[in-house]
Amino acid sequence: MNNEQIVLAKRPEGLPQADVFRYEPIEITAPEEGEVQVESIYISVDPYMRGRMNDTKSYVQPYEIDAPIHGHIVGKIIQSKHAQYKSGDYITGILPWKKVNTISADKVTKVASESVPLYLYLSVLGMPGMTAYTGLLQIGKPQEGETVVVSAASGAVGSVVGQIAKIKGARVVGIAGGEKKTSYLKDVLGFDAVIDYKRDDFTQQLKSAVPDGIDVYFENVGGEVSDEVFKYLNKFARIPVCGAISTYNSKEDIGPRIQGTLVKSQALMQGFVVAQFAEHFKEASEQLAQWVAEGKVKSEVTIDEGFDQLPSAFRKLFTGENFGKQIVKVAEE
Amino acid sequence: MNNEQIVLAKRPEGLPQADVFRYEPIEITAPEEGEVQVESIYISVDPYMRGRMNDTKSYVQPYEIDAPIHGHIVGKIIQSKHAQYKSGDYITGILPWKKVNTISADKVTKVASESVPLYLYLSVLGMPGMTAYTGLLQIGKPQEGETVVVSAASGAVGSVVGQIAKIKGARVVGIAGGEKKTSYLKDVLGFDAVIDYKRDDFTQQLKSAVPDGIDVYFENVGGEVSDEVFKYLNKFARIPVCGAISTYNSKEDIGPRIQGTLVKSQALMQGFVVAQFAEHFKEASEQLAQWVAEGKVKSEVTIDEGFDQLPSAFRKLFTGENFGKQIVKVAEE
Repeated sequence: MNNEQIVLAKRPEGLPQADVFRYEPIEITAPEEGEVQVESIYISVDPYMRGRMNDTKSYVQPYEIDAPIHGHIVGKIIQSKHAQYKSGDYITGILPWKKVNTISADKVTKVASESVPLYLYLSVLGMPGMTAYTGLLQIGKPQEGETVVVSAASGAVGSVVGQIAKIKGARVVGIAGGEKKTSYLKDVLGFDAVIDYKRDDFTQQLKSAVPDGIDVYFENVGGEVSDEVFKYLNKFARIPVCGAISTYNSKEDIGPRIQGTLVKSQALMQGFVVAQFAEHFKEASEQLAQWVAEGKVKSEVTIDEGFDQLPSAFRKLFTGENFGKQIVKVAEE
Repeated sequence: MNNEQIVLAKRPEGLPQADVFRYEPIEITAPEEGEVQVESIYISVDPYMRGRMNDTKSYVQPYEIDAPIHGHIVGKIIQSKHAQYKSGDYITGILPWKKVNTISADKVTKVASESVPLYLYLSVLGMPGMTAYTGLLQIGKPQEGETVVVSAASGAVGSVVGQIAKIKGARVVGIAGGEKKTSYLKDVLGFDAVIDYKRDDFTQQLKSAVPDGIDVYFENVGGEVSDEVFKYLNKFARIPVCGAISTYNSKEDIGPRIQGTLVKSQALMQGFVVAQFAEHFKEASEQLAQWVAEGKVKSEVTIDEGFDQLPSAFRKLFTGENFGKQIVKVAEE
């Protein structure tokens, strides 16, 4: 087996083009005591990784130039020098983008492969699911009968947010782009209303969709879409701010300032990163696994195939071309 | 005695000019059963009143055209038809801008005039004091050793916020305009650092004043000053949003959007209105009265004299000409 890695060749400006990524042949090293050798099977591409490509202070360290990009990976143990792992075990972890990693066993967590598709550990049973569950319930706190709006609603996080809000008895309005995504939200996930932000009548659609105002806005996109949403906040509205994907490739992000709106609606807006809610992960995993098993939470994925597809799959996160959780399959299970 | 009232003649655009206010002679009516007749002594002008002059949805009803402007007033009972009040009692309440009001006794609250100056019931012992106390402690939650920044720091709310934060053991940085205000904050109130936003080196002053970043930003002004402050938010920073006075007379309020900043710092930003913390008013009044008596909380006021001075006193809130709490004295105690 040939090994290969993808490093950050330079810091991108705007949407990361091919020259931001560099493929390098590398050795496969044998595991030492306490290590495991893991073949990558599914590699996750996630919007937050764009931030790590910049050289700016944030909640995680920037990726280093000429060092491998890291992210969530589901893989299979090839060789193990750790008592708790054996060849053939499936694991997940935040690992370098390599076909084969040889790493300390404490960097990985075993996952069950029998009951659910493995790639769900990168979506609803992984970081995006935890993000949706904790951000919505710890900050958004939707109550029965309230109106919850979620942007990027067909995405890995947004689709889970909307489904949990439905389970909690809220009226759920999803914002997404294009007929395929909006139909999916309405017909498959059962959202109460959907709004296509790409249509010219977006503002009218939004107004019609929230006759009772908005109690929770789960913020994934930022930009002009959110500026419009903020006009309908109810008193004591809550806004978990998960991200602002519409702006990640922009140098400037200028729009209406929010202070006046927050005072008028006595609203709470809170930026969060899933790691801050680690104490709730066990509860979240168990609850989400149960809902998935019961068919109450569905999860859409787009799986591209081939280690060479990682850069283009990553770019699709920002162009709206992906549908559901974007994953790249780089080896057979 | 002649009676007179001030009504809203029209909705202002920008800074309310003289033609927004209209003086009208009115009758003095005798109190009926359950009513009191009150002479206004001190009338408060407050920034939130600008919002009520607009015809837009907010947390309080807009003032009506041709109806008297309302606000906090300290007055003296002239006649009483209510058992709990007698002539000569001092009261406070949210009352129409009239020299003499005849109103239901349940609209007013008796205040003690012996121990403290009466006008303090319009500043530190009144609405601005409650706003500072509850907004800072319920949302800002300053911890010992943290850095608290407050804008409009010499104002009625800001000066109390800073002094409470000092009592709680925080390092306090005040932002104000001009030498008189910044000297007062540093020399009289003992703030740890002060920043003059009117000076060209504002951004450099700010940077130097917060070497450990900002844990709590008590937001009173909005606009470009706050855009700069947001660059220094620490992880898990809290931003009680009390107001954005720099923008109240503007049609547009455009600047950097906040979502990216909130996620990076995992910060919480919450708009509030003092009324939402009513359950804490008793505790706040008692605690503030004690701190005032002990000299731990000082309160600066600017008192203009004459019922005819109300419009100009109100305008001074927005031009930065006032110093401390702006009050108009309209009759002798």
